[in-house]
Amino acid sequence: MERLRLRATGRFFRYCSNRSLFDRRLNTNSENSIHNSTSGYAHGFGKNCRDFHFFSDNHKWNVQTCFGFLRYQGETCRDSTEKGLLEKTRRFQYRGFGSLAAKVQRNPSFSTLNSDDISYFKEILGEKGVIEDEEWLATANTDWMHKYKGSSKLLLQPRSTEEVSQILKYCNSRCLAVVPQGGNTGLVGGSVPVFDEVIVNMSLMNNIISFDKVSGILVCEGGCILENLITFLDNQGFIMPLDLGAKGSCQIGGNVSTNAGGLRLVRYGSLHGNVLGLEVVLADGNVIDMLGTLRKDNTGYDLKHLFIGSEGSLGIVTKVSILTPSKLFSVNVAFLACSDYFSCQKLLMEAKRKLGEILSAFEFLDSKSLDLVLNHLDGVRNPLPPTMHKFYILIETTGSDETYDRQKLEGFLLHAMEAGLISDGALAQDINQASSFWRIREGIPEALMKAGAVYKYDLSLPVEKMYDLVEEMRTRLGDSANVVGYGHLGDGNLHLNISTAQYDDGILTQIEPFVYEWTSKHRGSISAEHGLGLMKANEIFYTKPTATVSMMASIKKMLDPKGILNPYKVLPHS
Amino acid sequence: MERLRLRATGRFFRYCSNRSLFDRRLNTNSENSIHNSTSGYAHGFGKNCRDFHFFSDNHKWNVQTCFGFLRYQGETCRDSTEKGLLEKTRRFQYRGFGSLAAKVQRNPSFSTLNSDDISYFKEILGEKGVIEDEEWLATANTDWMHKYKGSSKLLLQPRSTEEVSQILKYCNSRCLAVVPQGGNTGLVGGSVPVFDEVIVNMSLMNNIISFDKVSGILVCEGGCILENLITFLDNQGFIMPLDLGAKGSCQIGGNVSTNAGGLRLVRYGSLHGNVLGLEVVLADGNVIDMLGTLRKDNTGYDLKHLFIGSEGSLGIVTKVSILTPSKLFSVNVAFLACSDYFSCQKLLMEAKRKLGEILSAFEFLDSKSLDLVLNHLDGVRNPLPPTMHKFYILIETTGSDETYDRQKLEGFLLHAMEAGLISDGALAQDINQASSFWRIREGIPEALMKAGAVYKYDLSLPVEKMYDLVEEMRTRLGDSANVVGYGHLGDGNLHLNISTAQYDDGILTQIEPFVYEWTSKHRGSISAEHGLGLMKANEIFYTKPTATVSMMASIKKMLDPKGILNPYKVLPHS
Repeated sequence: MERLRLRATGRFFRYCSNRSLFDRRLNTNSENSIHNSTSGYAHGFGKNCRDFHFFSDNHKWNVQTCFGFLRYQGETCRDSTEKGLLEKTRRFQYRGFGSLAAKVQRNPSFSTLNSDDISYFKEILGEKGVIEDEEWLATANTDWMHKYKGSSKLLLQPRSTEEVSQILKYCNSRCLAVVPQGGNTGLVGGSVPVFDEVIVNMSLMNNIISFDKVSGILVCEGGCILENLITFLDNQGFIMPLDLGAKGSCQIGGNVSTNAGGLRLVRYGSLHGNVLGLEVVLADGNVIDMLGTLRKDNTGYDLKHLFIGSEGSLGIVTKVSILTPSKLFSVNVAFLACSDYFSCQKLLMEAKRKLGEILSAFEFLDSKSLDLVLNHLDGVRNPLPPTMHKFYILIETTGSDETYDRQKLEGFLLHAMEAGLISDGALAQDINQASSFWRIREGIPEALMKAGAVYKYDLSLPVEKMYDLVEEMRTRLGDSANVVGYGHLGDGNLHLNISTAQYDDGILTQIEPFVYEWTSKHRGSISAEHGLGLMKANEIFYTKPTATVSMMASIKKMLDPKGILNPYKVLPHS
Repeated sequence: MERLRLRATGRFFRYCSNRSLFDRRLNTNSENSIHNSTSGYAHGFGKNCRDFHFFSDNHKWNVQTCFGFLRYQGETCRDSTEKGLLEKTRRFQYRGFGSLAAKVQRNPSFSTLNSDDISYFKEILGEKGVIEDEEWLATANTDWMHKYKGSSKLLLQPRSTEEVSQILKYCNSRCLAVVPQGGNTGLVGGSVPVFDEVIVNMSLMNNIISFDKVSGILVCEGGCILENLITFLDNQGFIMPLDLGAKGSCQIGGNVSTNAGGLRLVRYGSLHGNVLGLEVVLADGNVIDMLGTLRKDNTGYDLKHLFIGSEGSLGIVTKVSILTPSKLFSVNVAFLACSDYFSCQKLLMEAKRKLGEILSAFEFLDSKSLDLVLNHLDGVRNPLPPTMHKFYILIETTGSDETYDRQKLEGFLLHAMEAGLISDGALAQDINQASSFWRIREGIPEALMKAGAVYKYDLSLPVEKMYDLVEEMRTRLGDSANVVGYGHLGDGNLHLNISTAQYDDGILTQIEPFVYEWTSKHRGSISAEHGLGLMKANEIFYTKPTATVSMMASIKKMLDPKGILNPYKVLPHS
């Protein structure tokens, strides 16, 4: 696995969230390896924080997760080998706060693998497609956060839909549990075995099947790595409608299965809108061909949506048809100050109206977030005069014409200033300034990490209610903690972060379950985009009512009566 | 029913597809009535043709459907009463070509309504909510095309989700079949009873529950009329992400249930992308609350998609949460000529790239379509010099800034001209010119009607293959027919029309099933946006493979084991 072969000899900063334009890769010994690696990490950190670092000077790396409740810190010695580094990572300070995986029991109705099974798989896939190598399996059994670890003895690598079908048909008849695995970059333990499930790894199904340059419709196999698709499309003048930090490792089949959100959601919407068709293999080996390449098709139930976001528990995605937007070249970034949260909301409204068609990001941070960044990160400076405002907004536009788009943004800003919506602001004059504006927004998690212990919550909430939670939490915790709020205002996605000098169980009990209950009460979501996997399967009731969960369970029962597909995930264990 | 109360005293033209801006309503005696009426008709005609007329001078009206295989022509006398007009409509020339509703037998397992049932419903809904009035029922039993007619003896009007739940729970226990009915503007017989099903009419559940001006998220009951929502949003500076001719009558619950496409799909995508949440009542009365108001929520299977486009056969949509875009004011229209179909495709590609964020329509027509319009419609003229080109393209842009958007379009056109993609073109200088450009595109169906008999097919096909079907059909039919092709190139939606002097069964056998087989072979759809309903339930296999249909049937069985919800629709009868 490339991800574990990283060397701490590269230096990688991804300042900007949505353009390789702003990537900085320096002194990379093994660029591809590092790239895959960092991208892999970036999924977790990148999407919400992008605060990972690789320093070539002292081989030290700091990584902090922002989505879960973990904190990793580690140091590798200069002469560390790959294996040594791997060992080191396992010794990192590792502290779990809150919602960790529930204890689960192996389902006794599942069979145990025997030599006849192996022989059968070798018949179907050939020797090469049947992996029993211990080191390989150790990697595949572990998620990249090293939070979940299974004990599978077998990894299968099908090369075709027919092979996936044969595998599942056999496993279903034998009652062998299966975990589908793409790039294994998931954050909730969804892509690794819990016990001895057979791993069906999709990496070899990585062909682009067709691309229609007129309609922008791409059809490819589920094992295609997202970044390869992005590169392919870039050459054609198109982009994928989703982009995320893990793109160097994650696969499109996994993206679809987890309904990956990513950096372009605010502009291009979710995969439910962009995926036009799927081919899926059900637990019993039946191939469901829903691989349409049409924008309009109203002939019966649109079943593909069942598989988008079902985390591999209903079927394995073998082929994907997706609508890709044309690439646009003109990008502008502004950093603005607002005196209150109401102005932030009003500015969002105005931006949607006045910049509607070119708006590509609308991020917000409160003054405590900016404080943290300015106090803890080197080289970051406030682009505005030092008067402290209560809120800051980062607006990005992406369009087809540099001159017109810029004039449009300038006009909008002037108007917003006159209307009193913004109290101050700066418009980036070049790519470096744009990067430095993004650095403020993206540096918050890193600053939080430097400030001490941190309790992190990634929530979807109605925009108008979003900041109420931050304020209620602030009142609730008083002087015992520094509560900061920032996030994707355009998506209603809040990053609520509670920073304390050190971890304290007392603080945690004041935060949880209050934060989940508050989210639930305001019809928010406790998992904005990472899914439930193993980690949050039992937390589903905070967001979904019982009748809905019961309907989910009926669908699972209907499509996978023996429950062999990705067991212990998504649905509550109890 | 407002629809049937129309008087032929209004004159209504809807030249332009997507802006009330271009509507022309003159001499309307009862504007609201006429408006609702014409909008009702416009759904069928409007979406694909918009060729309906109401002339106040001679009370004559011509209506032609473009989606099915029907042709209506009629004339009302000057003193016709409402009832007289209704009678007249029933005597219109009515000719069905091709795929008419299959003969179906009443499911003998369904009970027959008795007086105890009526008493029970009166207990739940009160006297007013239980309709047994014959005239009312006659209307509700008939679809607006007068193509399908049921024999229901009972129409129920619930006022709340709880009442819908009580109705369905009772009907399920008694095995009484039910047809959910919104505005009854469907085109495939999906919204009327086939036999004696109880009609559950949603009109009284028409409250707007909330609107978040910051996020643009609207929550409302399923019975809200689309136009009322559009008007409500207009006052807030927003638009619905869907718009269609039937907006004056159709209801959002019905729009969701049929996955209505409409005029804004090319820009804002389908309801699968825009609907954020639903509340649905299942056949057994269970209420499924999926009424999220979040752009991001990855907590389990996204079940709402099952109900989008399932045509009321899986549940009744009682509440809808939908993301609405901000209203944009700048509109430009260009009419262009291309020498070949490849140039049309290339121009579409370029338009997506260069106009990407402001492109709101990309329509095409072939020279035979233009010929028809110029030869048969009064007052329509070619905006280009008379040299005949092979293809014509209508491009519309909608954005937030008139000056910049226009400059952008002009720049694009200049570039396209220089690159040889377009051989000629005209840019509308005002609203009247824009209307006249749209009139050419929208006048085609009317011109076809005037030219003689017409065989019409509304298909989704891959853009690159789309025109091949027209050419193959032309070769196939030789001199016996005039084959024309036009449609929404941006959506891959072809209107294939075959015009002959008079109807001929021999021609029909040359067209069908060839056209369906061809569509099927190229992975097209035989129903781009109207659904299957009763009319096309048995044709599903032209687009969907057996395994998919079988999975649909399993889901139907799971959610509605007795099959009481909208029976005989969507799924094949055999």
